[in-house]
Amino acid sequence: MRDMLGREEVISVEKALQLVLSNISPVSPPEKKLSIEDSYKRILSRDIFSPEDLPQFARSTVDGFAVNSSDTFGATETFPAYLNVAGEISMGIMPAFDLKKGEAAKIATGGMLPKGADSVVMVEHVQHIDARMIEVMKPVAPCENVIMAGEDIRKNDLIFMKGHRLRPQDIGALAGLGITEVLVFERPKVSIISTGDEIVPANCPVNLGQIRDVNSFNLAGLIAEAGGDPVKRGIFRDDYNVLRKVIEESLRDSEMVLITGGSSVGTKDMTAKLINDIGEPGVLFHGVSIKPGKPMIGGIINNKPLFGLPGHPAAITVCFEQFIEPVLGRLSGLAENVFRDRKRIVIAKISKNVSSSSGREDHIRVSLEEREGEIWALPILGKSGLITTLTKADGIVVIPLRKLGLEQGETVEVRLF
Amino acid sequence: MRDMLGREEVISVEKALQLVLSNISPVSPPEKKLSIEDSYKRILSRDIFSPEDLPQFARSTVDGFAVNSSDTFGATETFPAYLNVAGEISMGIMPAFDLKKGEAAKIATGGMLPKGADSVVMVEHVQHIDARMIEVMKPVAPCENVIMAGEDIRKNDLIFMKGHRLRPQDIGALAGLGITEVLVFERPKVSIISTGDEIVPANCPVNLGQIRDVNSFNLAGLIAEAGGDPVKRGIFRDDYNVLRKVIEESLRDSEMVLITGGSSVGTKDMTAKLINDIGEPGVLFHGVSIKPGKPMIGGIINNKPLFGLPGHPAAITVCFEQFIEPVLGRLSGLAENVFRDRKRIVIAKISKNVSSSSGREDHIRVSLEEREGEIWALPILGKSGLITTLTKADGIVVIPLRKLGLEQGETVEVRLF
Repeated sequence: MRDMLGREEVISVEKALQLVLSNISPVSPPEKKLSIEDSYKRILSRDIFSPEDLPQFARSTVDGFAVNSSDTFGATETFPAYLNVAGEISMGIMPAFDLKKGEAAKIATGGMLPKGADSVVMVEHVQHIDARMIEVMKPVAPCENVIMAGEDIRKNDLIFMKGHRLRPQDIGALAGLGITEVLVFERPKVSIISTGDEIVPANCPVNLGQIRDVNSFNLAGLIAEAGGDPVKRGIFRDDYNVLRKVIEESLRDSEMVLITGGSSVGTKDMTAKLINDIGEPGVLFHGVSIKPGKPMIGGIINNKPLFGLPGHPAAITVCFEQFIEPVLGRLSGLAENVFRDRKRIVIAKISKNVSSSSGREDHIRVSLEEREGEIWALPILGKSGLITTLTKADGIVVIPLRKLGLEQGETVEVRLF
Repeated sequence: MRDMLGREEVISVEKALQLVLSNISPVSPPEKKLSIEDSYKRILSRDIFSPEDLPQFARSTVDGFAVNSSDTFGATETFPAYLNVAGEISMGIMPAFDLKKGEAAKIATGGMLPKGADSVVMVEHVQHIDARMIEVMKPVAPCENVIMAGEDIRKNDLIFMKGHRLRPQDIGALAGLGITEVLVFERPKVSIISTGDEIVPANCPVNLGQIRDVNSFNLAGLIAEAGGDPVKRGIFRDDYNVLRKVIEESLRDSEMVLITGGSSVGTKDMTAKLINDIGEPGVLFHGVSIKPGKPMIGGIINNKPLFGLPGHPAAITVCFEQFIEPVLGRLSGLAENVFRDRKRIVIAKISKNVSSSSGREDHIRVSLEEREGEIWALPILGKSGLITTLTKADGIVVIPLRKLGLEQGETVEVRLF
């Protein structure tokens, strides 16, 4: 995109992302049935309603004696309530007897209350007279120390909404309700196309002038962690027809296409031209006010997003966090939850002045160090083409668009990775 | 453990954890060779040194002209430096020519500098006279816009230490060095033993008095996320011999044993007795000043930790975070990194007063809500036996040992899960 004077226009990160998101029509990924054991971190494709009450009976939450609470009212250590022991509740079966007025039944945590009982006196508040009689030294209220039938979950309650990502405790809840299979969305496939005549596979020796493929490994890990299914297409020559073929193939059998590198003069324009030539609407933005990552290209073809990513490793990581991860969430069917999807943050002080230009969002790699009880973020200097600026870093500090750098000692939020 | 008055003594979370960690001798889990594609999140079992320089040659970081910087000194728009174009650098191969004094060579990002060149002028600062000559309108310093040979990583540099957990960018760096296989530690196996005569498998219908196994599903997910290999042993009767057999089997072929439930009166003591009977040193603590989770038991047999966990779902999650995860990290061979292993935290304000007793660490489940730009943490009330106190929660707020509750509007750290 060029402005009225013919200069190349770069747009803000926020605008660029909005442009992509607003141009994707709602998609509903295919569904898949999985056993709950295999569903950790998967996204539900349907609302789930409870088929039954949980628990289905009143359960004791303590070890003690099931009683009718009215029999204990006013009981104290000096004037205890005397109750007859009607028997002991066996675990896992319905009590064989009902409780009558003035009776108590020995019960363990998790035991089912007998009919006639509405509460449980903790064993600590009971004295044994003999096998047949106890003294209760403290009154209990109705329902005290009891989980009532349906108190946790009621039959037909909506327990999880479509788009919810399942956590360990959620799988536990499903198991508790006897739901052992769920329908989840298939993970979106994301094609990774590496371009550049100088790039060779990781398992090849390099000649002078060549460099091994770093970015597709970094990207594959980022995609998998974000809930996508990475598909490495391979390394391709900077050639219009070669690239057109692999992009078209990728669009056919994946939900997003990432093209990294394209470093020879003219290839950047070639990626943009390819996206525009292959389908509609084509390129949405070309250049973003972000560092590293400025030459990034974003487009859509047949409702599938494509990104042209600069070849520098640090730019890959920054562009992934800012663009690809939110778009991938949308394609995955994930319901937005700003809190649960938040990255881990550490509040730290920046260890030295860092300059930044206004009109550019700067993403500074930092390592963290504790010094006398304070956490300091140490900027890692070095070109964004250096992979070690990422491997030595603990996270990233963002200097916003309109801020002119950071002053030593200033408090910053470090987004860990 | 009982104090001098014979009362059961509970110890602080910190002391209990220290007791376990200090009683485990250093372990080195078995090693396993994996391709880097399969090594995401795995823990390195050896230091890794670089087999070569990265890059192996000086590379351009921009599109432009490779020059000898001294030829550009003093160049301005008014008085540009005139340089002869000696040729164009092809990507991926060694330049076929050297640069002489007064010469420039067209080069793309990632291209190899020819002999005689020490820097690159960006294409933006060049005017073309004709195919044979350019005007340079801005001087460059030596090494400007160039990544020098070995600037990223030098041969024999220590790149990752034993105990480092591999992130996407780390795998990228290994690929860049041609390292396609690594030695990692095997994941520690963690046995999960469910006890309780009232517990039935998730796929069974429940009769009155019975409840399905929730905790082993919650635990299996937590263990896998923390880098362990969960082994569900099944559901066992509250019977000394039955439990002794499965605990002994679990100790033989796993690195940690978790025993959940044991809810009938006397079973808690049975778990402690079993741990003491089976081996040395046996039970280390019985009862911790934490809520939920107080009745927890910790022990060690033959250098393998065992935990007896209360059956309440919320207690399982809290005990896991406080005890099992740090111990699992130790068993995994993970080098400590207080920052990278930190949980995701959200700063919020608590929405209502919450009371807590001194001498007890209270773990309150909360959901998060944004109201007029502020984040509020809403305590989820309800017994710790309710699974929904976990499924409705976004995270946990800790009220420390000596603090008497929280006041409405107070700022809290929410540990997300």
